[in-house]
Amino acid sequence: MTVLARLARTVTWGDCDPAGIIFYPTYYRWMDAATWAMVAGAGFPPARMRAEHFTIPLVDSNCAFLSSPVFGDECEVRSQVSRWGRSSFTVSHEFILSDGRVLARGTEARVWCRYEAGPGSALRSEAIPQELRAALGAAPA
Amino acid sequence: MTVLARLARTVTWGDCDPAGIIFYPTYYRWMDAATWAMVAGAGFPPARMRAEHFTIPLVDSNCAFLSSPVFGDECEVRSQVSRWGRSSFTVSHEFILSDGRVLARGTEARVWCRYEAGPGSALRSEAIPQELRAALGAAPA
Amino acid sequence: MTVLARLARTVTWGDCDPAGIIFYPTYYRWMDAATWAMVAGAGFPPARMRAEHFTIPLVDSNCAFLSSPVFGDECEVRSQVSRWGRSSFTVSHEFILSDGRVLARGTEARVWCRYEAGPGSALRSEAIPQELRAALGAAPA
Amino acid sequence: MTVLARLARTVTWGDCDPAGIIFYPTYYRWMDAATWAMVAGAGFPPARMRAEHFTIPLVDSNCAFLSSPVFGDECEVRSQVSRWGRSSFTVSHEFILSDGRVLARGTEARVWCRYEAGPGSALRSEAIPQELRAALGAAPA
Repeated sequence: MTVLARLARTVTWGDCDPAGIIFYPTYYRWMDAATWAMVAGAGFPPARMRAEHFTIPLVDSNCAFLSSPVFGDECEVRSQVSRWGRSSFTVSHEFILSDGRVLARGTEARVWCRYEAGPGSALRSEAIPQELRAALGAAPA
Repeated sequence: MTVLARLARTVTWGDCDPAGIIFYPTYYRWMDAATWAMVAGAGFPPARMRAEHFTIPLVDSNCAFLSSPVFGDECEVRSQVSRWGRSSFTVSHEFILSDGRVLARGTEARVWCRYEAGPGSALRSEAIPQELRAALGAAPA
Repeated sequence: MTVLARLARTVTWGDCDPAGIIFYPTYYRWMDAATWAMVAGAGFPPARMRAEHFTIPLVDSNCAFLSSPVFGDECEVRSQVSRWGRSSFTVSHEFILSDGRVLARGTEARVWCRYEAGPGSALRSEAIPQELRAALGAAPA
Repeated sequence: MTVLARLARTVTWGDCDPAGIIFYPTYYRWMDAATWAMVAGAGFPPARMRAEHFTIPLVDSNCAFLSSPVFGDECEVRSQVSRWGRSSFTVSHEFILSDGRVLARGTEARVWCRYEAGPGSALRSEAIPQELRAALGAAPA
């Protein structure tokens, strides 16, 4: 896939479970961080998201687990937008170990939203900004 | 669905994100806890799992998010085994708010495994014990 | 100590680390949940805290670890306010295993604050409400 | 202080609470990661710790919170050993924002231990290896 963002993560002691491998919800924490980092890299860093009252709630997510890293393993989350809707988009993530092995593959379906009346108010979906679509390689809408 | 296990969870301050709603990986932490609790209730509590070198790693998981609880909301995770293989099984979870609203629905595909030579050694899949299958309502294999 | 609030917690798989015992930051997550639950029980549940723009940020926290629970252990967090200031207060927590053993003891120093202009705005410390002090057994101020 | 190890951390969405600032147990997760990283940098990476059955459980920990970072803030954890015993040692951590501001200061008291009979068996404290002490700047014992 065309990788649009890369996020480095070293498996910490606290990321693991008593089996000594990554506790699986950790992958979802990493996906969430990877998507926000990709959006930040495309011109919408946290400060701008806050200032313009944007957020990106989820519709669904999934992950398939192929091989489990252990404490100390160096991983990379490689992410791209694999589907563009008007206001929804899907991010596909691959988790790669430092030796090149694929650890897991997951997706997140999200919606581009704005708080109608500032933080904590009701959310309304909006068309994804052209600036974001262009930065992340979408074909013109 | 025929609910086989119920786990109560009140959304804590730390379970939430800056949007003031549940941080979505929290659902996966709850699913993991719900499955282990269901297995415990079916005769395989943590101490026995440890003593007999059993564990239940994941193949994949997913969750669809319908409505987001906020800090203080009382929820229930309702779980059942929705698919039985020889050594693999799928657990389906529903997250219900105290007013009856469905918050989310997810599944986990897992494999019944044993550490070949004690904790930390290689894992080998095994036939799911009849005791567990019977306790969780599987048709005879 | 005069216990004012009790919070039950069963150690989950994900609460533990590769040593098979509780990952120590879990104690702090439990302390945070216990304090909010105690405040809720004293007349200030999450919905009221939100509506009246109250929050209770921390000044410092600490914990001494005496014995480590493992996956499946049933614990109780017993909490009381051990020091009252005008706007600051200290909560002392004991973590007790189901067999009565003390697992850990910790404290949190917090400040009663209000958002000046709604959620996300600047915080200002305020005198702790008499209603809260009375409910939690403080001598009259 | 003489900084012996630096760990970079960017505050993620999931590291924060509904107040929009870092959820305080996150600091303890970072301290734990920083100590393991410092020990790794001193010649005892995770694979060696596992192979030689070493672990470093905690006696106590604390943290004072001075200023709270928000989602997206870039932080650094600066760590050093501030006290050396025969088998126990204390690690002092400072959390610094990218603009130089001190966010928090904490310590962890830990014990150098070995599993007597492999992973999961009883722990026995041991003299801290001279190799570790030397790498981390301790005066000769």
